Amino acid sequence: MHDIHIVADPPNRREIPIYKPSDRAGVEVIKVDPSKIAGVVLTNLPDEVGAFAKTDEVTEQIGQNVADFLSAEMKNGRIPSSFLPLQSGVGNIANAVMSALGAHKGIPDFEMYTEVIQDSVIDLMQKGRVKFASGCSLTVSPEMLINIYNNLDFFHKRIVLRPQEISNSPEIARRLGIISINTAIEVDLFGNVNSTNVMGRKMMNGIGGSGDFTRNAYISIFTCPSIAKGGKISAFVPMVSHTDHNEHSVQVIITEQGIADLRSKSPKAKMQTVIDNCVHPEYRQALNDYAHLAGDTHTPCTLSAAFGMHMEFERSGDMRNVNWGDCFRK
Amino acid sequence: MHDIHIVADPPNRREIPIYKPSDRAGVEVIKVDPSKIAGVVLTNLPDEVGAFAKTDEVTEQIGQNVADFLSAEMKNGRIPSSFLPLQSGVGNIANAVMSALGAHKGIPDFEMYTEVIQDSVIDLMQKGRVKFASGCSLTVSPEMLINIYNNLDFFHKRIVLRPQEISNSPEIARRLGIISINTAIEVDLFGNVNSTNVMGRKMMNGIGGSGDFTRNAYISIFTCPSIAKGGKISAFVPMVSHTDHNEHSVQVIITEQGIADLRSKSPKAKMQTVIDNCVHPEYRQALNDYAHLAGDTHTPCTLSAAFGMHMEFERSGDMRNVNWGDCFRK
Repeated sequence: MHDIHIVADPPNRREIPIYKPSDRAGVEVIKVDPSKIAGVVLTNLPDEVGAFAKTDEVTEQIGQNVADFLSAEMKNGRIPSSFLPLQSGVGNIANAVMSALGAHKGIPDFEMYTEVIQDSVIDLMQKGRVKFASGCSLTVSPEMLINIYNNLDFFHKRIVLRPQEISNSPEIARRLGIISINTAIEVDLFGNVNSTNVMGRKMMNGIGGSGDFTRNAYISIFTCPSIAKGGKISAFVPMVSHTDHNEHSVQVIITEQGIADLRSKSPKAKMQTVIDNCVHPEYRQALNDYAHLAGDTHTPCTLSAAFGMHMEFERSGDMRNVNWGDCFRK
Repeated sequence: MHDIHIVADPPNRREIPIYKPSDRAGVEVIKVDPSKIAGVVLTNLPDEVGAFAKTDEVTEQIGQNVADFLSAEMKNGRIPSSFLPLQSGVGNIANAVMSALGAHKGIPDFEMYTEVIQDSVIDLMQKGRVKFASGCSLTVSPEMLINIYNNLDFFHKRIVLRPQEISNSPEIARRLGIISINTAIEVDLFGNVNSTNVMGRKMMNGIGGSGDFTRNAYISIFTCPSIAKGGKISAFVPMVSHTDHNEHSVQVIITEQGIADLRSKSPKAKMQTVIDNCVHPEYRQALNDYAHLAGDTHTPCTLSAAFGMHMEFERSGDMRNVNWGDCFRK
């Protein structure tokens, strides 16, 4: 399944000869001088892959909204009729999105050019919906791994694993015109995305390759539920507490509430689009109030209030109690 | 001087055949159906290019530090002996950096693969230090433009202007292994960079193509003076008030104080490196205090204090008066 292509150092670097996800640029095996091998350790220890939560109403609706958005993009001629390769992050929301894409009649059979290949991709491959997947890692559940081993002839033709330098190459992401779909922890009114640190300080996820894909994608999408902890936390805040992807790279935000298409919009127009389409109804008034109070500048922002919802959560345990008057008076 | 190469839409996109800055991928002129031309407007109105401030001790020291850093990288074998193409932002600091690179004995004659070509590049070209420059725009002073017109045979062989999609292509930036050098308004202790919005709200610059280069560069560098307004403002703060380039893409920060090499460092190690090497001595204690108070997490950060220096500036007009006790008690 492997395709090992070593990129030379500059100034001798040439193009990476990949023009579709199934192209091979290198060789299937790494040849090693046998005299350098001190031993071979056999193991039957399985990979440690956490179980996925089942999809629920919220994640299913997010998936449906992503599929509807991409289907509409195709109808409007912004995505070619042959579709474009997808990059997908990992986790429960990513799985729900993949399922929804597989089920959507407006999305043709498609290919993946991604980093980590998950169970949902293998599922859709067996259903004929995913035609090919290129990645750098196969991170599947123990049951799925047995399934793959039992059907190696089938999967050998449909999966290629490459070095991360190739799977995440900006050259290939831009050339293939990939659609990147990754998950946010929190998003602000301008489309800046926090993917890693809760309250700016507690690491929840690594960023993985999402930066490579988001920056160089044909369309970059982030998904998340609009609220967490039963509504005590809004995923949408005036300013993210940690920035992993910024407003210049993030194009589309999708929640169970709807779709905020931020492409070609000014900061003010982005604010309104995010509030109207993605924010949970319980937080629309508070964020509209912030947008109104934050100032009539190119990028409305008041630093004393920018983390008002975060600090309210630290104080009372519920962002809904935020009092902008206190924040703006400081 | 032009090289017009039109990139096809995916899925028919091929490689951009540029392997060194002087390679040409397309044609010298755009052919237009004469029946579509309604008229030709002749004008002698010059381009409006603002005058540059002279270099001073601070910008000269920044330039010297950049040149020393790149020379050391070459000596350590991380930059090949043929050097690598440079991308440079525009403005007074960029001009000072270019001059310093031109004057440094440890830097060989070099090429530019950049967005906007400025006076300083033309200067170094006439001195034989810049061998070739590729860009999408020639933004020079009226005097320099006359100089170019008077020496067109010389410059025609040494300058190429391409569409921005090519001058800023992630494929070419990565393949050539460019060294990007751009200017920051403010930088935080983790290397996040604000290039555009003062206090998060007042636009001072557009971001230009710095995102394309910074994300995909071989080495990405940001420069700035460590203080502004006679010391009332520190360019280094606990958290930037607007993020244009984030910690995942920013590798090296250089001020007149020194060089913070953030590559391969943890958030905590980045904080200490920035404080020790780049922050102005008048602010080292305050930022060390913040780093100490901010919490012993993966990314030390306390949101109530993160903008403490900004808010102190709004209150008293001088960041040096910041009182962390007040900020952390909230």
